Amino acid sequence: MAWCSMATREEPLNRLPALEITQGIAQGRFTAEAVTAACLARIDAREGVLGAWAYLDAEAALARARELDQGPLRGPLHGVPVGIKDVFDTFDMPTEMGSPIYTGHRPAADASVVATLRAAGAVILGKTVTAEFAGLFPGKTTNPFDATRTPGGSSSGSAAAVADAMVPVALGTQTGGSILRPASFCGIIGFKPSFGAISRVGLKIAAESLDTVGVLARSIDDAALLTDVLTGQGLAAGGEVADAPAIGLCRTFLWDTAGDDTIEAVEGAAARLREAGAPLAEVDMPDAFAGLSGARDTINAYERARATAFEWHHHRDGISDRLAAIIEQGFATPFEAYIGAITQAQDLRAGLDQMFGPNDALLAPCVPGVAPEGLESTGDPAFQGLWTILHVPTITLPTHRAGDGLPVGIQLVGRPRDDHRLLSVARWVAARAGTG
Amino acid sequence: MAWCSMATREEPLNRLPALEITQGIAQGRFTAEAVTAACLARIDAREGVLGAWAYLDAEAALARARELDQGPLRGPLHGVPVGIKDVFDTFDMPTEMGSPIYTGHRPAADASVVATLRAAGAVILGKTVTAEFAGLFPGKTTNPFDATRTPGGSSSGSAAAVADAMVPVALGTQTGGSILRPASFCGIIGFKPSFGAISRVGLKIAAESLDTVGVLARSIDDAALLTDVLTGQGLAAGGEVADAPAIGLCRTFLWDTAGDDTIEAVEGAAARLREAGAPLAEVDMPDAFAGLSGARDTINAYERARATAFEWHHHRDGISDRLAAIIEQGFATPFEAYIGAITQAQDLRAGLDQMFGPNDALLAPCVPGVAPEGLESTGDPAFQGLWTILHVPTITLPTHRAGDGLPVGIQLVGRPRDDHRLLSVARWVAARAGTG
Repeated sequence: MAWCSMATREEPLNRLPALEITQGIAQGRFTAEAVTAACLARIDAREGVLGAWAYLDAEAALARARELDQGPLRGPLHGVPVGIKDVFDTFDMPTEMGSPIYTGHRPAADASVVATLRAAGAVILGKTVTAEFAGLFPGKTTNPFDATRTPGGSSSGSAAAVADAMVPVALGTQTGGSILRPASFCGIIGFKPSFGAISRVGLKIAAESLDTVGVLARSIDDAALLTDVLTGQGLAAGGEVADAPAIGLCRTFLWDTAGDDTIEAVEGAAARLREAGAPLAEVDMPDAFAGLSGARDTINAYERARATAFEWHHHRDGISDRLAAIIEQGFATPFEAYIGAITQAQDLRAGLDQMFGPNDALLAPCVPGVAPEGLESTGDPAFQGLWTILHVPTITLPTHRAGDGLPVGIQLVGRPRDDHRLLSVARWVAARAGTG
Repeated sequence: MAWCSMATREEPLNRLPALEITQGIAQGRFTAEAVTAACLARIDAREGVLGAWAYLDAEAALARARELDQGPLRGPLHGVPVGIKDVFDTFDMPTEMGSPIYTGHRPAADASVVATLRAAGAVILGKTVTAEFAGLFPGKTTNPFDATRTPGGSSSGSAAAVADAMVPVALGTQTGGSILRPASFCGIIGFKPSFGAISRVGLKIAAESLDTVGVLARSIDDAALLTDVLTGQGLAAGGEVADAPAIGLCRTFLWDTAGDDTIEAVEGAAARLREAGAPLAEVDMPDAFAGLSGARDTINAYERARATAFEWHHHRDGISDRLAAIIEQGFATPFEAYIGAITQAQDLRAGLDQMFGPNDALLAPCVPGVAPEGLESTGDPAFQGLWTILHVPTITLPTHRAGDGLPVGIQLVGRPRDDHRLLSVARWVAARAGTG
């Protein structure tokens, strides 16, 4: 195996951010094949413990990388290995969605995002483990920091693989907290753009008015780069804001459920940002927002029942008890209650501008604490789901480590469709809010 | 063949509305097999001229009907033959989406709506012809009133099959005007519920923030029945409004493009409704709404490019020139322009309440005139697309015939998510606005 023969830089190629990978390849310092080989070597060494991958074809990935090496630069992701959460269709790999119903299932086409990444030169390394249909029933993945703990979910494999340097970036989806929670538990960046920013065509939908496509990465610039490719935005070129941004501290109505590590992560970040010159006024969430968690549950159950109607009627034995309970709840939910929840969410969205006030972004808790022990649950989605239903962009930054070394992320929340500013603020925050 | 042996009623079984089919089967007056056989006989007689079906398996449909006859009543659509626009996945029939790229393509699962219809006892008769990916490039279907004219599109086969009594009801989708236009050209009911009311899981999306699932039928009650099954609403039980409803006459900024037949259809309906006691005040559409057509074009192109990314990058030769031009336009559209159009539409939606004023619904033109001659175009979507982007429920009623006997529908528009009231108003209007 010549996999590691070209990894002559100080930093092994599998640890490079996507932006440096494309630069290095463009400058002829290393090849796409060498990068892919380094990622595969890392997977080879660690997959037995981590279980991040639902499907991997090393030979196909290397062949693709060699093909890229032999041609002209294809686009802004030329040679970048990417992990794809196994809820996105791929025409050349199985798409099993974390469900035994779809064992070996081969779609006819790529999801929009997969086709777009390939066209930009990415090497689709394989499919990452997802909780069943991007819900709560976990897959096999463990936490890279402690194999007895959950990596979070439902984008479990994408978060673990990126955190463990198996791949620089991976795609995720968030219906409740499925991008930001595993990113927080695994100590990486998780970026959920505004609802609707990235196409969902070819994604197995979990809940239509909540599902948002996003990115797991080890740097904000990489998250921005992938989002750029998928939307045509100019996020990657943004840089950080020039002056201290106006950030509000929004503890939310769930603050009582935050554990000591989360309190320390949020208050500590707030203190450091104040020292750096950000005013960080407290932002109160109006009482009406407390209804969001219930509204999200109603919408999630109603829509999931419809999204899983075929599986429910034809393959009920293949559905976990946990998901079955939600589907039953969804089919029992009257349409009027569903529309009530949709309307409630819409009305609260209309009040976001007032809540944000003069702030460019809000600093909020991301998770109740470090990744819980055990693999039977992927953790609590409440802190993340609150913002998902509001359709605002959110990002988690790995600014804090608990006493035992486990990561706890903070959450930054942007104004609706103000993804560009959120990332600029996040760059400023990331440089100042960390403990290390 | 014993197909027609049980058609002893005055009305042949293939001409019965869905509601009477379920009643007749429940009362033992005829069987599901006889209904399906009558529909198949009609197809046998007329499909050569009409070309409404992309796929039909008569034996499988009859077997399903016999299976229903042998068991208990399954649900509110027990024994009702339904046509499915060929953009919805079906696990037991090809799904070709009007594209040579997908010739013979067999999905693994049913779309949510298909699974739900089956579970309610429907007989999925087959797949109806769609324009390419529910866009503008037409399929083979002709207009039941005149085979030299378009049936409209993109739900061409669903509209023609329902109009020609091949099936009582069929599913359609509307991105611009793909339900109401063919319904109007074919002289039937076309109902587009509020955006988001019916699940799109398993639908080949054309444009994510526009696509709306709806129903083609020969009676309002049947359209309501199918929508009930798909959402859990209580539309079918609604009946008409008790008193003359408040209907506004909204000619829209496109009125100059309305031909004589449309002017006659709208003004004639308005006059008859006034006679029947509806005040029918004129409702002016604020000037800002004139931007909707351009915004819809921008959104449609941007989102279609993403929705067709795989086909674009892997099967470009299989894409029509007409669609290719839109995809190219979409990939050339900056994200900022797209978000601008999305925001514009959202702002105008927020102004709908004020525009509706005291009115329960608006009477508006549906199409520029009768179905145009020729099969190379499916007609102009502007009058329908205006409301699609506003996400409001719309219905067309076949109240008018031009001098040559060709139908021209009127359009009724409901308030956002007020689908129930729109159908009640439509029942009242349908009983009073027709010429015959």
